[in-house]
Amino acid sequence: MSAEALSTDRVRINTPATNGDRLWGDIVSTARFGAADKGGVTRLTLTEEDRRVRDWFVAECRALGCTVEVDGIGNIFATYAGEDMSLPAIAVGSHLDTQPQGGRFDGILGVLAGVEILRTLEEASTRLRHPLTVINWTNEEGSRFSPAMMGSGVFAGALALDATQALADREGIAVGTALDAIGYRGEARIDPAAFSAYVELHIEQGPLLEASATEIGVVTGIQGLRWFDIAMSGTEAHAGSTPMAQRDDALVAAAEIVLAVRDIARQNPPGVGTVGFVDVGPNSRNVVPGSVRLQIDMRHPSEAGLDQMEAALQQAVGRAGARAELKRIWSKAPVVFAPSIVDAVRNSAEALGYSATDIVSGAGHDAAHIATIMPTAMIFVPSKDGLSHNEAEYTAPEECARGAEVLFQTILEIDRR
Amino acid sequence: MSAEALSTDRVRINTPATNGDRLWGDIVSTARFGAADKGGVTRLTLTEEDRRVRDWFVAECRALGCTVEVDGIGNIFATYAGEDMSLPAIAVGSHLDTQPQGGRFDGILGVLAGVEILRTLEEASTRLRHPLTVINWTNEEGSRFSPAMMGSGVFAGALALDATQALADREGIAVGTALDAIGYRGEARIDPAAFSAYVELHIEQGPLLEASATEIGVVTGIQGLRWFDIAMSGTEAHAGSTPMAQRDDALVAAAEIVLAVRDIARQNPPGVGTVGFVDVGPNSRNVVPGSVRLQIDMRHPSEAGLDQMEAALQQAVGRAGARAELKRIWSKAPVVFAPSIVDAVRNSAEALGYSATDIVSGAGHDAAHIATIMPTAMIFVPSKDGLSHNEAEYTAPEECARGAEVLFQTILEIDRR
Repeated sequence: MSAEALSTDRVRINTPATNGDRLWGDIVSTARFGAADKGGVTRLTLTEEDRRVRDWFVAECRALGCTVEVDGIGNIFATYAGEDMSLPAIAVGSHLDTQPQGGRFDGILGVLAGVEILRTLEEASTRLRHPLTVINWTNEEGSRFSPAMMGSGVFAGALALDATQALADREGIAVGTALDAIGYRGEARIDPAAFSAYVELHIEQGPLLEASATEIGVVTGIQGLRWFDIAMSGTEAHAGSTPMAQRDDALVAAAEIVLAVRDIARQNPPGVGTVGFVDVGPNSRNVVPGSVRLQIDMRHPSEAGLDQMEAALQQAVGRAGARAELKRIWSKAPVVFAPSIVDAVRNSAEALGYSATDIVSGAGHDAAHIATIMPTAMIFVPSKDGLSHNEAEYTAPEECARGAEVLFQTILEIDRR
Repeated sequence: MSAEALSTDRVRINTPATNGDRLWGDIVSTARFGAADKGGVTRLTLTEEDRRVRDWFVAECRALGCTVEVDGIGNIFATYAGEDMSLPAIAVGSHLDTQPQGGRFDGILGVLAGVEILRTLEEASTRLRHPLTVINWTNEEGSRFSPAMMGSGVFAGALALDATQALADREGIAVGTALDAIGYRGEARIDPAAFSAYVELHIEQGPLLEASATEIGVVTGIQGLRWFDIAMSGTEAHAGSTPMAQRDDALVAAAEIVLAVRDIARQNPPGVGTVGFVDVGPNSRNVVPGSVRLQIDMRHPSEAGLDQMEAALQQAVGRAGARAELKRIWSKAPVVFAPSIVDAVRNSAEALGYSATDIVSGAGHDAAHIATIMPTAMIFVPSKDGLSHNEAEYTAPEECARGAEVLFQTILEIDRR
């Protein structure tokens, strides 16, 4: 047994353990706030259902002795005092809002695991050296108000508070109005410098961990993303009387692009490329399509990979047999998490004896914003069948429990530094 | 000069000529019945606009001495007496209804050319040996009431009169009610045996004649047609977190089918194949498509060609990388026109010195039904840019005039037999 393992064991012996059953109980019981028909949750941000789960979260944390603060975008910071209050806090968290007909785990697991760690510390009458803050970020999902990752974006300075409060949902209700309506427009002005690190536990929302029977994903970063729109123009024509040689079929050209996007992604691993949206004009069986619009999503962990994929897409569009206009409409740079925090996650999983693998997140997370202002990493646990944004989303009790244990160990490792 | 050419010349010398300017005048002037914004016509069957053009047609034919009869589905038969009324009539015609925002030529040319021939004969105080009947078929277009080619279908016995009168449009108005409303539910019971032949002049609605600078299309038949629906099932998945190797993308599989349909048609000339309709589920940029529905139109002049195309489509669907269900939802057998009437058209075009080529119609026509009950053929004139079902549909005055001349010559040749 190496000295390092001995040291980790000593830490475990000296610290209490999180309780997986208690965590699972919270997951099941908070799913009542916005319970959907098929076992999932519909809890759009800043709705009455969101207010109820926020109230529950605040009450639990206060009961555990935390100081609770709310900022101007409704982010909730529940801080458990440390032995040395002059040290910056260690932060954990995620989001309690869901997609419509969403799952019980996406976001929720990261917040509830934080609560479980608070309980574990409080039950053992123990404190860390550092303060520990559990955060619920407002509107990660972006289903009601756009953009997604709103609360963490404001906190990180990527979004201006005033302008964000003024954004409206489809019914014209502004974010600020919705915050007031549920009593979560706070006054706290929280300085990012008050934190030393941020760790977010989340479900993978993809199939990799399950497929490789791996218990823990050590998330090293978040893929960069580029969105493209393509408008293809052919010539609308009669399907019966237009010979093949005289056609300028926009859909045939679009089909070539769809296959090219797949090939480009395959040729640039671990990149992914998707044509998710197709709109054909006039979309009538017996008319040769005159126009097609495609929406494309490409992701890669590196900027260079994204550049290569975009260049290949431009070539493919040039080769396709119709007039095509390609526009990049959005891009997000890849996020590379802080190696010191990623190492802490990897060490913790190893120390606990869990199988672990490095993984790059395909989806965006609040951690992407927070990584711009403090050392950040994430922990993934498996998603059954890779499903998410879906009531059938599922992560087993023991998988959730392992995630919470690794989160706790990671905090402990950071706390010792 | 051959004996045959001499004979044809003698006929021309002995018979009056149709007047292209007068025909063009009718095309322009009848376009006022349902005039659309961009120079086209919106004259859906059995509407007030249709009543007005029908009333005009009936009045013109009566003024030229014709007997006018209307049958139970509203088909109008205007008969100009022949020298020998014991002979069966020669029939010409087409349809006066249009698509919404349709053109001034599709169908209309065939009826108005018939009227012009009546005028030519009447002006010259001449009769043919046979009676000559100009027919306006009800609801060729099928835009308001389905199926298309309704009047000719009832006349040919392919559709039952009672059941067809009961069919309703989108507003619930039955064909019979619409016929009554415009005064065109007739009592005439017209025996197909009263006719010896049917010749329909029509615009090509395709690009072949224009592309080859040919003046007349000698239509030898109408392509057979098969319609297929394909439902493809993949697995809906997160576009960011689902690696390429683990995808079951219904749209990628559908793109392979779109290209296969093109390839199958190319490999089976002169067949054509079109995927005109695509419906993607959930059709969201950042979701790997879980389902795609395709609608396919395949046509070929021969049944054997259609069989080969269908077999190849089945193979392509089997190869595509998703679960796919292929259904043939409709088929129409190819129509082969009567060689004796096709020869009369070809001879007439040649005798008039017009460039002509054999052509198979890609679109359906009333002549398809009529070919099942009497010797039938069609004459095509060019369509600018192959456009039809469109206000920009255009055939030049001299092209219309040539079509009417060839129609007249063809009638004369049949009349001499």
